[in-house]
Amino acid sequence: MSSIQEQVAFLAKRDLSSMYLQDFLLTWNKSHEELLVVFQTAEILRSMREQNISPRIFDSGLAISNFRDNSTRTRFSFASAANLLGLQVQDLDEGKSQIAHGETVRETANMISFMADVIGIRDDMYIGKGHSYMKEVAQSVQQGYDEGVLEQRPTLVNLQCDMDHPTQSMADMLHLINHFGGIDQLKGKKIAMSWAYSPSYGKPLSVPQGIVGLMTRFGMDVSLAHPEGYEIMSEVEILATENSKVSGGSFTKTNNMDEAFKDADIVYPKSWAPFKAMEQRTDFYDNNDFEGIKELEGKLLKQNALHTDWECTEERMKLTKGGEALYMHCLPADITGVSCKQGEVEASVFDRYRVPLYKEASFKPYIIAAMMFLGRVKNPAEMLDLLLNQEARRTAH
Amino acid sequence: MSSIQEQVAFLAKRDLSSMYLQDFLLTWNKSHEELLVVFQTAEILRSMREQNISPRIFDSGLAISNFRDNSTRTRFSFASAANLLGLQVQDLDEGKSQIAHGETVRETANMISFMADVIGIRDDMYIGKGHSYMKEVAQSVQQGYDEGVLEQRPTLVNLQCDMDHPTQSMADMLHLINHFGGIDQLKGKKIAMSWAYSPSYGKPLSVPQGIVGLMTRFGMDVSLAHPEGYEIMSEVEILATENSKVSGGSFTKTNNMDEAFKDADIVYPKSWAPFKAMEQRTDFYDNNDFEGIKELEGKLLKQNALHTDWECTEERMKLTKGGEALYMHCLPADITGVSCKQGEVEASVFDRYRVPLYKEASFKPYIIAAMMFLGRVKNPAEMLDLLLNQEARRTAH
Amino acid sequence: MSSIQEQVAFLAKRDLSSMYLQDFLLTWNKSHEELLVVFQTAEILRSMREQNISPRIFDSGLAISNFRDNSTRTRFSFASAANLLGLQVQDLDEGKSQIAHGETVRETANMISFMADVIGIRDDMYIGKGHSYMKEVAQSVQQGYDEGVLEQRPTLVNLQCDMDHPTQSMADMLHLINHFGGIDQLKGKKIAMSWAYSPSYGKPLSVPQGIVGLMTRFGMDVSLAHPEGYEIMSEVEILATENSKVSGGSFTKTNNMDEAFKDADIVYPKSWAPFKAMEQRTDFYDNNDFEGIKELEGKLLKQNALHTDWECTEERMKLTKGGEALYMHCLPADITGVSCKQGEVEASVFDRYRVPLYKEASFKPYIIAAMMFLGRVKNPAEMLDLLLNQEARRTAH
Repeated sequence: MSSIQEQVAFLAKRDLSSMYLQDFLLTWNKSHEELLVVFQTAEILRSMREQNISPRIFDSGLAISNFRDNSTRTRFSFASAANLLGLQVQDLDEGKSQIAHGETVRETANMISFMADVIGIRDDMYIGKGHSYMKEVAQSVQQGYDEGVLEQRPTLVNLQCDMDHPTQSMADMLHLINHFGGIDQLKGKKIAMSWAYSPSYGKPLSVPQGIVGLMTRFGMDVSLAHPEGYEIMSEVEILATENSKVSGGSFTKTNNMDEAFKDADIVYPKSWAPFKAMEQRTDFYDNNDFEGIKELEGKLLKQNALHTDWECTEERMKLTKGGEALYMHCLPADITGVSCKQGEVEASVFDRYRVPLYKEASFKPYIIAAMMFLGRVKNPAEMLDLLLNQEARRTAH
Repeated sequence: MSSIQEQVAFLAKRDLSSMYLQDFLLTWNKSHEELLVVFQTAEILRSMREQNISPRIFDSGLAISNFRDNSTRTRFSFASAANLLGLQVQDLDEGKSQIAHGETVRETANMISFMADVIGIRDDMYIGKGHSYMKEVAQSVQQGYDEGVLEQRPTLVNLQCDMDHPTQSMADMLHLINHFGGIDQLKGKKIAMSWAYSPSYGKPLSVPQGIVGLMTRFGMDVSLAHPEGYEIMSEVEILATENSKVSGGSFTKTNNMDEAFKDADIVYPKSWAPFKAMEQRTDFYDNNDFEGIKELEGKLLKQNALHTDWECTEERMKLTKGGEALYMHCLPADITGVSCKQGEVEASVFDRYRVPLYKEASFKPYIIAAMMFLGRVKNPAEMLDLLLNQEARRTAH
Repeated sequence: MSSIQEQVAFLAKRDLSSMYLQDFLLTWNKSHEELLVVFQTAEILRSMREQNISPRIFDSGLAISNFRDNSTRTRFSFASAANLLGLQVQDLDEGKSQIAHGETVRETANMISFMADVIGIRDDMYIGKGHSYMKEVAQSVQQGYDEGVLEQRPTLVNLQCDMDHPTQSMADMLHLINHFGGIDQLKGKKIAMSWAYSPSYGKPLSVPQGIVGLMTRFGMDVSLAHPEGYEIMSEVEILATENSKVSGGSFTKTNNMDEAFKDADIVYPKSWAPFKAMEQRTDFYDNNDFEGIKELEGKLLKQNALHTDWECTEERMKLTKGGEALYMHCLPADITGVSCKQGEVEASVFDRYRVPLYKEASFKPYIIAAMMFLGRVKNPAEMLDLLLNQEARRTAH
């Protein structure tokens, strides 16, 4: 790999101004150039840390997190990224707050942001809710900043919504770039984004949506496979089709897992909930019908159980290019005989790919750090140069 | 506004030694001079941050928080202030601790304070409890320090007790100072601290008590209004009367909201629980009678419901000076038709004052930071000078 | 006490390389030399902080904590130590994570460690579980590091397991070293590690095991006293016997509290659960029989209640050397008439030793900081010299 200085010089040639003070909510609202800049910045931050150079740009400041759904990987990635840049994570635990009183999103967003540089939100449980909520928070802090209430306009980072999971898909993509030796190497590569059976709860659609929404932009052949009824949002399918036209790749759909796996360079077998069920769930939620949500969950697991054959087996892996496709997963996976009786993937397949899977996950802290960095620094290349020259050490040892 | 240097020079003329290593529990235990010093320090810290100058004085150290009641605004303000000065917040979550074993306050206070520079406590639920608890903690850490157990004597900051809510009232006051263009401009201004109807739980009395206990010291005409039975602590009424004699203002009481609003320059309509009920609540608590507390809550909401006409309406706002009084609230407010069916304030009034309300809240992190700063720094003016000269940046951008 | 420089010069003569990148799980897996190095480093870090010299060696980095049992003292000690060295605590709250999905220890350990320098774990509830879990985490991050998944290999610190409580026993030992004026002064001193009655739950065995496992290494006469049925793990008894042979001390057992107290220089009366019951508890746990655990708890309290006379009374204290043995406890103690009707210690005894007890606890943050420091710094003496010379202040005041 080229030296950090060379990478920064390369970055300096790009248009870097457009992400300053902007949020990162959906990859499809970002330009091709902007995505490349995130990848490069993430790589540079990683190299710096590996060489024990501190990229700390904040002496103080808060990174607010608001997790409306459980999280380990993303929570720790967010905390790692914030800490690396010098921000202090402050978690908005809605259970311990006074928010139950019924205060508005606008008010809460301003109240927590007086010294916030970054806000990270996970809100992935209800179709039509998460992204809307993030937009409302973004508008609220923008308004607060414009009205002189806030001294800085915090940058929002989407830590998973109902539509997209950009810190995941971007980390996945950076993994592919590293694995295949460059972004240009991805042109013409086939990726199977496939549904897989899971005995656990109705998982969000944001990962498959994020993957097809992003990977179609880089000339890849994206094959989306799932049983009938497990469609993803049609908006994302439409933009995936458009993306592939522009990028010279393709976007196809199938109800046959084998077909998707056939000659694939990469497979991403992962469970998600049926779209219609997710919509129903939102209705129940709107009516505070938690009994209904519980009942639906039961139905949904039964529906899933009709498709236990959607598993990433050794047998199926043989269908892929040379039998050696790269297996991907956002983790944790439901591994047959390990974390459940029958699940998304055969244990021997998972185990064979354990190291690349963990490496895949290792990019997320840097992707998030890059999103934060680019949202808070006006001249990123100049700043990185400065950081390299001042040679502050991350750890003295 | 004058330059930061001028502000610091002005501060340097005051007696600054008296707050060093002292707690901030009740505004009425602080001298007039001390309150002015807090306001000025808060303004200076705000100006520094706005100009991207870091006021960080700690390389390490903990700021312990102990929230015995829910909090969003104060929690984030405390975290922001601690972080700005370089302290790490460590929350004492009594549920996750071993404190249930029945250990003494003295012991816990010492055990958490070995590396603590600041302790912030919210304990506002029971009349006669919160302030006593804080004093016990203060005595405990003082004793620990005197006995050589603690290497430093942490400074306590009252984040709301049963008697006072000094970080709120001081932030409110600083808002008024900024709004009216100086502390001298507040002389002769009329403020209506009025009860207002709320359908929610029995709220603490610390805000109205904090407001009348503080604002009577600056020559303001403070009118306290509430239905019969909603008296505040008599000790605070007595000191409000004394304060007003000294400051040249006045303190009056009425059971008529209109009378309080009449010609007011400022209105602060806010719900609180009937004093007698709060005392009963403490008795129930002492007897571990949580059923009794629940029952009382029901009675209390019924009692409140007799006074739904105590609302800050557009109609009532017309009674104020020129119909243009400044509307204040500690937030979150119970807004009619927004956060509840009928509440403290008409939606259009609240909305008209939204920006000043948010600005009011924005002073709290700086008030808390000033309290921390003055409790930990022996020569505050000298230190601020030093910080200005060293020109460390809060954020590189 | 000698100057810090002298202490560092003294430390420089020792073999310091062996603890670099190593975990601290059990004192009995550490050499005599290594234990001395921890004590000295802890003392140096304490002196530095007292003289307001910052020992911060990290510009960023996470210290992960995973408390599978309640904690106040150790939680705050860990947070204090991490903060002193510049690390940010990130708590792995298994309730808020996705770990319930059934993911493997290996996976979670890697997922949280991408930017982790230290991992602290408390897992003390089940015999045969805690230490095994820590070893599994240690192996996992070692493997992750070896495979290129992790950029650094985090150091594990045992914050209490089923076998040992090294941060407690080492802090206790450092207290003794300071109290008696040097480690050589401990030779021939008699310590009574005695069971004592408690009305509260079945407490872990790690404290008595930690004490007899450590103190027998320094030539002390360790007398372990408990009622029949309250044996500690036989492995620890065996190594205590071996230790005492090497160190020139002794290890004896008795079922008579008075016998242990007789002529003791130090007494450590503390409740723990019967070993057999703890084993049963593990079986119940393995079978998810939480009803069984609850029932067992009842039986166990009844069994305890047969031994209420095992109390550290004034009367018993008179049996000790000159009636003036040093009373120790890991806190919180069950104090008769204070935290319970009848407990481990008479109130007047506890109160008389309150200051030394708090001082005993005050060593824990420094012991943990020393363990972290030695695990992360290749040349500790050189680094301490550097830190002394650069004279960074912990707090500007």
